[in-house]
Amino acid sequence: MKVAIQGEVGCFSHQAAGRIVPGSTIVPCTRSAEVFERVIRGSVGAAVIPIENSLAGSVAEHYDLLLASKLFIQREFYLRIVHNLIAAPGTALEDIRRVFSHPVALEQCRIFFRQNPKIESIPFYDTAGSVRHVIKDKVPDAAGIAGRKAATAYGGRVLLTGIEDNKQNYTRFFLLQRAYRILPEANKTSLAFGLRNEPGILHKALGVFAAYGISLTKIESRPIQGRPWEYVFFADFMRGDDKVARRALKNLKEVADQVKVLGIYKAARII
Amino acid sequence: MKVAIQGEVGCFSHQAAGRIVPGSTIVPCTRSAEVFERVIRGSVGAAVIPIENSLAGSVAEHYDLLLASKLFIQREFYLRIVHNLIAAPGTALEDIRRVFSHPVALEQCRIFFRQNPKIESIPFYDTAGSVRHVIKDKVPDAAGIAGRKAATAYGGRVLLTGIEDNKQNYTRFFLLQRAYRILPEANKTSLAFGLRNEPGILHKALGVFAAYGISLTKIESRPIQGRPWEYVFFADFMRGDDKVARRALKNLKEVADQVKVLGIYKAARII
Repeated sequence: MKVAIQGEVGCFSHQAAGRIVPGSTIVPCTRSAEVFERVIRGSVGAAVIPIENSLAGSVAEHYDLLLASKLFIQREFYLRIVHNLIAAPGTALEDIRRVFSHPVALEQCRIFFRQNPKIESIPFYDTAGSVRHVIKDKVPDAAGIAGRKAATAYGGRVLLTGIEDNKQNYTRFFLLQRAYRILPEANKTSLAFGLRNEPGILHKALGVFAAYGISLTKIESRPIQGRPWEYVFFADFMRGDDKVARRALKNLKEVADQVKVLGIYKAARII
Repeated sequence: MKVAIQGEVGCFSHQAAGRIVPGSTIVPCTRSAEVFERVIRGSVGAAVIPIENSLAGSVAEHYDLLLASKLFIQREFYLRIVHNLIAAPGTALEDIRRVFSHPVALEQCRIFFRQNPKIESIPFYDTAGSVRHVIKDKVPDAAGIAGRKAATAYGGRVLLTGIEDNKQNYTRFFLLQRAYRILPEANKTSLAFGLRNEPGILHKALGVFAAYGISLTKIESRPIQGRPWEYVFFADFMRGDDKVARRALKNLKEVADQVKVLGIYKAARII
């Protein structure tokens, strides 16, 4: 199956797609909107997109695209973000004097740079792109910092692995498809709902879930552009497509302006 | 007054700081944690940090730092993100063949690139940094895309202004200081609170605000690292330091595990 991702070949979305859909063919896209368009047009069978990172928070653009599109979350997946020092084959660790990567990745490997004061960190626009740059452009004495997939993608060698300071760094990905499909083991729902500007209205909306003893695992408000003081809420709750969940959603529609189920899927463990 | 920011000289935080604290001296820092540390140590009088963007969402790292630090929000401010095409003096629009900028900024100026098919877009790690690069390294036939401040900071010339596709692009900034100060016109509160893992507990917590008719303008859950299924919530509500707000906060403490007021300040208009 063809799977669209946003980013360069060898990026973390590529790595996640390989884990979620083994044997898939990756279609890298520059823009996230293009990723969604490709699935809608049917030129790819699915998309794998990051939706939140434990350190950086939610990817608001992807929530906005999910709300606007007719795609459906089929699965969630947590990927541990492991940073690797990757160089051209033949380059040894002792040769490295410059390391390129995205500023956020460089920031997440501060201990490595403190322990190697002779190595200069150079900001680059992308993690996987820094590995490609170092290998394809044959930059001497240099390495990139990226996920392991970047090494296989560009023929690089992993010199060091796990050089990130914080091991609690993981990204949650969604597998999106056109079909509204709910697998039997589905036990988690992602939804969006709009609320008018009224004091206590969110309390009233959440009362629907409380009445059925349903646990929310996420909630986030986003202002609606061009409509000051009106909000759309993105929420996850622990319940699949059963009678109780359906009743709760029905009751929510009496309080909320619009209720959109984004997907009903099996909750993944944080690994 | 010295004001710490995260980012390069000429970045949008620099621009915001100039508007919030006119005449201030900017202290640019590589890391956000350093920005907070400098205010706490007293080597600067204040910090200006972005907290959310209308297109990209919240800056989770800054919420986490706010929760962990003893700094206090003194003001909020909305800055319209206007992208400019900036080149070295003497370079004319007709000369430009390559434009450097952060991938997100390039993405936000798609119409410009569609209308100028002869101009190549080249991803760079930073917006203001791309302007510095083009000017200081005397890159011929090139320009950068950044905020207006980058032009004044590096002696560049604005060739085109407002080349972003979406004019609804604004960033909300906080002015942080060490002092717990509440100005008389303060009418908005930002707070964080932790909740145990219990169905309906968020509903109960929000019931406190609903009971007093207090409007929430933002709510966001963040998982607490290392404590699965426990969450900290970041919320804003429209109320200053008055009797009703104080009573609501007192009642909230009976439901929530920890309640931390991050700041009480005057609500700014979205401009």
